[in-house]
Amino acid sequence: MRRGDLIDVVGFDADDTLWECQDTFDAAEQLFFETVSPYASEGIDLADSLRSTELGNLAISGYGVKAFGLSMIEAAVTATGGKIPSRAIGVLVDHIHDMLREPVKLLDGVAGALQSVAQTHRIVMITKGDLVHQTRKVRTSGLSHHFEHIKIVLEKDAETYQGVLDEWNIIPSRFLMVGNSVRSDVVPVLEIGGFALHIPYHVTWDHEVVNTTSHAFESLDSISMVSNWLANEAK
Amino acid sequence: MRRGDLIDVVGFDADDTLWECQDTFDAAEQLFFETVSPYASEGIDLADSLRSTELGNLAISGYGVKAFGLSMIEAAVTATGGKIPSRAIGVLVDHIHDMLREPVKLLDGVAGALQSVAQTHRIVMITKGDLVHQTRKVRTSGLSHHFEHIKIVLEKDAETYQGVLDEWNIIPSRFLMVGNSVRSDVVPVLEIGGFALHIPYHVTWDHEVVNTTSHAFESLDSISMVSNWLANEAK
Repeated sequence: MRRGDLIDVVGFDADDTLWECQDTFDAAEQLFFETVSPYASEGIDLADSLRSTELGNLAISGYGVKAFGLSMIEAAVTATGGKIPSRAIGVLVDHIHDMLREPVKLLDGVAGALQSVAQTHRIVMITKGDLVHQTRKVRTSGLSHHFEHIKIVLEKDAETYQGVLDEWNIIPSRFLMVGNSVRSDVVPVLEIGGFALHIPYHVTWDHEVVNTTSHAFESLDSISMVSNWLANEAK
Repeated sequence: MRRGDLIDVVGFDADDTLWECQDTFDAAEQLFFETVSPYASEGIDLADSLRSTELGNLAISGYGVKAFGLSMIEAAVTATGGKIPSRAIGVLVDHIHDMLREPVKLLDGVAGALQSVAQTHRIVMITKGDLVHQTRKVRTSGLSHHFEHIKIVLEKDAETYQGVLDEWNIIPSRFLMVGNSVRSDVVPVLEIGGFALHIPYHVTWDHEVVNTTSHAFESLDSISMVSNWLANEAK
């Protein structure tokens, strides 16, 4: 029996699984450092200030570019004791709006990989982030026709996966999740009895890094290998 | 035959239908005017500047407090030619984060009205806005147990309603939508052949005002009257 015979539906993460995301945040952080450091109070660790502000706001503002932008501005004012000129803040706000407008950059092999998997399996997308921004990325990606359902969630934990799969009448034990984050795409899906494939991306947001996991899981080097994985014999 | 017999599911809007919303935005605008006007360039109409910035960003940043906050900061820098000190920007950012934390203020009669309707009908929520913020409001409102489904959408047009009702297997002609916006809650639902009840709120965001409508629709003075409306004889 093939692995694919054990699976009804394949779920894909989006950011850094289908298209680039973390690179854009890293570039924005660089802009933040360059813009803010000339005015930073002595002894301030700007990276730490930004990170703490982001994490402090996470529960109320969530993931995504707009939440990040507001945290960046808050950190810029705080870390400079108000000494940063508002024109420099204007540069940061403009950059945030540019990020929201940025064309989607599909990762290598994504279009072909989805087409292959779609020939044998139903496909859904489960992703975190900002509703408007993710919807825009899905719509402009040229990939949306592959997805039977698309869900943008606040947090990818076991409870959320269980709820989303229930809503779509998908049996967890017949569901495979594919994504770049062990914390968000792999561990919670294994916890509810599903399959998961990790496809590492070259950069990972610190927040998504898990140092240890009690779960054994499989990694593939590329999303192009998912359809082969499905076609192989189950052990 | 009662009207309620013609209807399977009742949908409720959230902002300014179940809980206060526009008042908070109006208060934030007042803070914006007070904070920015001492530095505003001569001849600048601050209200116009804020409104234009908001509408210009709507397509990429959407509705909701975070999008509004970024527009407010952009307008503050632009309308003052960068003369506003960043400490004042910090006040605006802090206020945005406060808005995200604000306790939900239910409108009069809402809890009882939902309870009454729930005795005879399935209830869903369809609302615009920010995913994190709306989810937080629903969770903390104490009302979420009434709702079979909750959907946060980008825009409430006929196509969106049709898609959401299809997803939930609800027949439009047996669906009633209740909300404070003629533009978002009434007209598009009538367009897809559903029922709609308008419950005016004392303030309406300019963007939601429609000056003319070719649709005849019913208004109720209070959400408490919905269950009576359902119990009355259909004409």
